[in-house]
Amino acid sequence: MGTLLRINMTDRTYTLEELSEKYEFLAGRGLTSTIVHDEVDPLCHALGPNNKLILAPGMVTGTNAPTSARISVGAKSPLTGGIKEANAGSGFAPSLARMGIRAIVVEGQPENKDEFWMAHLTWDGDAGQAKIEFLPGDKYVGKNLYKVFPKLFKRFGKVNITGIGTAGEFRYGNSGLVFDDTKGRPARYAGRGGLGAVMGSKGLKFIILDSKGAPGVEYADQELFNKGRKKLTAALMEHDLTKPKGALNTYGTAVLINIMNEAGGLPTRNFSDGRFEGAAKIAGEAIFEGNKERLGKELYNHACSPGCIIQCSNTWHKEDGTELVSCQEYESIWSLGANCGIDSLDVTGELIRLCNAYGLDTIEMGTTLAVAMEGGLADFGDGDQAIKLLRKVGKGTPVGRILGAGTAKAADVLGVTRAPVVKGQSMPAYEPRAVKGIGVVYATGTMGADHTQGYTIAPEIAGVGGKVDQFDRDKADLARAFLETTAFIDSTGHCLFIAFAILDIASGFEGLVEECNGVFGTDWTMDDVGRIGKEILAKERAFNEAAGMTSKDDRMPEFMRIEKLPPHDVIWDVPDDTLDAVWES
Amino acid sequence: MGTLLRINMTDRTYTLEELSEKYEFLAGRGLTSTIVHDEVDPLCHALGPNNKLILAPGMVTGTNAPTSARISVGAKSPLTGGIKEANAGSGFAPSLARMGIRAIVVEGQPENKDEFWMAHLTWDGDAGQAKIEFLPGDKYVGKNLYKVFPKLFKRFGKVNITGIGTAGEFRYGNSGLVFDDTKGRPARYAGRGGLGAVMGSKGLKFIILDSKGAPGVEYADQELFNKGRKKLTAALMEHDLTKPKGALNTYGTAVLINIMNEAGGLPTRNFSDGRFEGAAKIAGEAIFEGNKERLGKELYNHACSPGCIIQCSNTWHKEDGTELVSCQEYESIWSLGANCGIDSLDVTGELIRLCNAYGLDTIEMGTTLAVAMEGGLADFGDGDQAIKLLRKVGKGTPVGRILGAGTAKAADVLGVTRAPVVKGQSMPAYEPRAVKGIGVVYATGTMGADHTQGYTIAPEIAGVGGKVDQFDRDKADLARAFLETTAFIDSTGHCLFIAFAILDIASGFEGLVEECNGVFGTDWTMDDVGRIGKEILAKERAFNEAAGMTSKDDRMPEFMRIEKLPPHDVIWDVPDDTLDAVWES
Repeated sequence: MGTLLRINMTDRTYTLEELSEKYEFLAGRGLTSTIVHDEVDPLCHALGPNNKLILAPGMVTGTNAPTSARISVGAKSPLTGGIKEANAGSGFAPSLARMGIRAIVVEGQPENKDEFWMAHLTWDGDAGQAKIEFLPGDKYVGKNLYKVFPKLFKRFGKVNITGIGTAGEFRYGNSGLVFDDTKGRPARYAGRGGLGAVMGSKGLKFIILDSKGAPGVEYADQELFNKGRKKLTAALMEHDLTKPKGALNTYGTAVLINIMNEAGGLPTRNFSDGRFEGAAKIAGEAIFEGNKERLGKELYNHACSPGCIIQCSNTWHKEDGTELVSCQEYESIWSLGANCGIDSLDVTGELIRLCNAYGLDTIEMGTTLAVAMEGGLADFGDGDQAIKLLRKVGKGTPVGRILGAGTAKAADVLGVTRAPVVKGQSMPAYEPRAVKGIGVVYATGTMGADHTQGYTIAPEIAGVGGKVDQFDRDKADLARAFLETTAFIDSTGHCLFIAFAILDIASGFEGLVEECNGVFGTDWTMDDVGRIGKEILAKERAFNEAAGMTSKDDRMPEFMRIEKLPPHDVIWDVPDDTLDAVWES
Repeated sequence: MGTLLRINMTDRTYTLEELSEKYEFLAGRGLTSTIVHDEVDPLCHALGPNNKLILAPGMVTGTNAPTSARISVGAKSPLTGGIKEANAGSGFAPSLARMGIRAIVVEGQPENKDEFWMAHLTWDGDAGQAKIEFLPGDKYVGKNLYKVFPKLFKRFGKVNITGIGTAGEFRYGNSGLVFDDTKGRPARYAGRGGLGAVMGSKGLKFIILDSKGAPGVEYADQELFNKGRKKLTAALMEHDLTKPKGALNTYGTAVLINIMNEAGGLPTRNFSDGRFEGAAKIAGEAIFEGNKERLGKELYNHACSPGCIIQCSNTWHKEDGTELVSCQEYESIWSLGANCGIDSLDVTGELIRLCNAYGLDTIEMGTTLAVAMEGGLADFGDGDQAIKLLRKVGKGTPVGRILGAGTAKAADVLGVTRAPVVKGQSMPAYEPRAVKGIGVVYATGTMGADHTQGYTIAPEIAGVGGKVDQFDRDKADLARAFLETTAFIDSTGHCLFIAFAILDIASGFEGLVEECNGVFGTDWTMDDVGRIGKEILAKERAFNEAAGMTSKDDRMPEFMRIEKLPPHDVIWDVPDDTLDAVWES
């Protein structure tokens, strides 16, 4: 059945329990959301002793299923006040799964809020179970994660790490959990929703994970699993977006910059325009060409986490060819670039590097900087000032604290009314006025504005899984289907990007389900995917409702309803009934 | 029927309409809340073009009814996100009423958010109606209101003024509307809920009101009115709290400091204790004795607004006998004093003076300073640092903006979890863990945490209108009765302090109803008071519900449910069912 590891940070103790039977077939987001639903008081303070931080690898994580090294992190969010799941790809996920740990539940908090600890989690071969040693973390507090990570690897050897930077120490609404990437960089994030602040509020700086000797994942039917794995692998190897030297492997996620700009849906200068004149300079193609020029050779992308076929994670290099940062994702380049009027990959690279160094979500940080620019703290396009402001966030100066609090609160504090947020979380890189389906997802999703909970951009823009008109407003069914399927995929441990392949290639979808059945011994069909996703969403919705949310929280901010967005001069005009219909079926 | 004056700040135009028949018997809070309910989109941005700011004098305001010079201000609140009414006593109220203006509705906003205007409102005798001239307000922007008010009186003569200070210009969540007191000081506030930011967002700096030549209030039955007025006057002259040289006239509202401290219900050092060791030094008695010592004679209090019998407004004098400030109210001394661990009337006086100078609500400011102290920006009890921080609020520095945003947001930005707020507004000077009834009012009232919406302290502490045990938890009926009655009193134009007299003296209550019938020609009985109050609350509740509030917003912050309050070691233990019962009848 697997183990549930409870860590109590009030007195630094832990217990290993057998996972409850009712959680038998839950993993990843399905498990984090269920535990939050079952155990966390929805009206507790997100940074108080009664919130819990849950980490859970996916159903097939730890196996050799392709692109499956994701871990879900869940809690009540200090940013939205509702339930939150954010997931990251990292070697941490399979290492944890191979220990048989289905979830870590971090509870309580120290009396002294300046205290920070590390949990050193290893495999006790004699006892045949995991064990934890708690170590003081103070000496790593207030430090740049790029400096801290190498010290941790030096001290603890070949381990995986999750933890927080100064952002989480400061309890910022914008703070994520960092995870190590394949080269040990502090570069993979469960970024959204302020989960780093929850970890910080528990006085937990790092979990250092050493899985040496761990037994590995058990299979109910390994043959079936292998059959599924092969089908999914074949689909990923075949699809134009996910195959080697395909779009994502060549240009990274930023291949979307030019496409979204062309569609008039690339939010620019704090969501005041849908098209950015500098888009081409920060597009995936520019990354590829720029690296080629600076390195003197073509550079294809790499895996962010072990076992990934898609390999969309890039690096960006300085003029002298040394590495500036990994990774310049589409969302990060957009938020810190186009949305701030900045058209330089060197600037976005530096801003991303600082976000990684401090433990910040790049999306929320870019949207907050844009609000700060509108509020007069910098001019749009002023990269130098953006860098200066971001350094203040890392230091916790008063300005830094304002900007670390997230877009909604920064806008309130700065007196800016154009705050692109739903449920207190800022919108990612798709303008909902120009692409209505993603707007329906932003508005109605359980996570606040978040594209990863239902990536309707696939059919609306990329023509994946069919093609629908970006301006069509009748998208409740589309949004619901994506929300449900995604809740399942987020539970499998697979990266959401497998969706590109399985939406177009049915055998890949079959393979996904067979993999899960092979691990769990279930007999799910493709129809169960929607059912399971719906059940997860129902728990998340129930938590949010108990936390005080209503259909009124499933709405777009007023400015989108009254300000026309160039170049298509469109407002947010999806009827409220359409939004409500997402949850009425 | 009276006039409704609409001011459109988008293009600086205005219209005079006859008040709609459906509003015939509404005034004060009843009218502001009804117009907000009828005309404002509950999901609009509180600082956007679609919010409206309403000012309405009470039913008998402008007559010679005692203690009746109050004006209600209403809007969607940027602090709570719900409906808001705050009222102030000022000559502005009767002057407006004597022009026959039942309400001013301020709409729209200029394109340029740095633009500020004044509306010079005068009586056009030839036309027999009010008129407005719009004048640039820029030269008064960024200035101390104590310097601006004398200039305005010098320029415009014998006028009344309402407007905003720098706090409203900065769109702070903590910013009120200032009104002139009987000596022209910028000292009377419709303080709570950030209504100053709404006025600021409309680019309206001041309304300068010159009622010379105005016809005065019409009576349906002046004889009945006079009969009622005499009864109410007699009650006020008789009751120990409200009579001349009675408790309020001698010691001011701060007569409560020692009483609440004795009851263990005086929130101290950010609601971490119910008793303050320095209470006696900042009590009403200390004000009286301190002034006597510094002035060499006994000083009784004065009226804050024309026609008040109670006369509870005080002044505090420096060692050399010159005036430091008016007025050291109980709430202000508590919030900026005990709640910050400060035991000096000279310090609280200076802090209050600065709040008046900048246009801040003293309650929200004190609770925010206490949160800042807990967050490490100053030590509890450090008056010098408190004064420095408050000056930053007035200047709009980054720290100032954090603290100007109100207690809830400042706590989030500073990472402080002990935020004493309901619906985003901070609690006044009565600890709900120690005085349960006022807690029920804080939690369930339509205004967020606010004592003036149902002052159950009267029976719970002062023994007025009966005596109930402060720790008794079964107070849904008590809270409801106070909420309803108060909604009516807030509509009459009387100061809520008449309640002390009419709760104990039935003929005073009769007189109140007769006054209203005398003006309106209605035949209300004392039973109608509750009905009318209930109707007002129903509209306010409907607005809040449409803005997204639920019973989950009628709850106390978690820390009060889990931290014991000394000296009685009590938690907030009123069952949720009791809270919900307030609105189930």
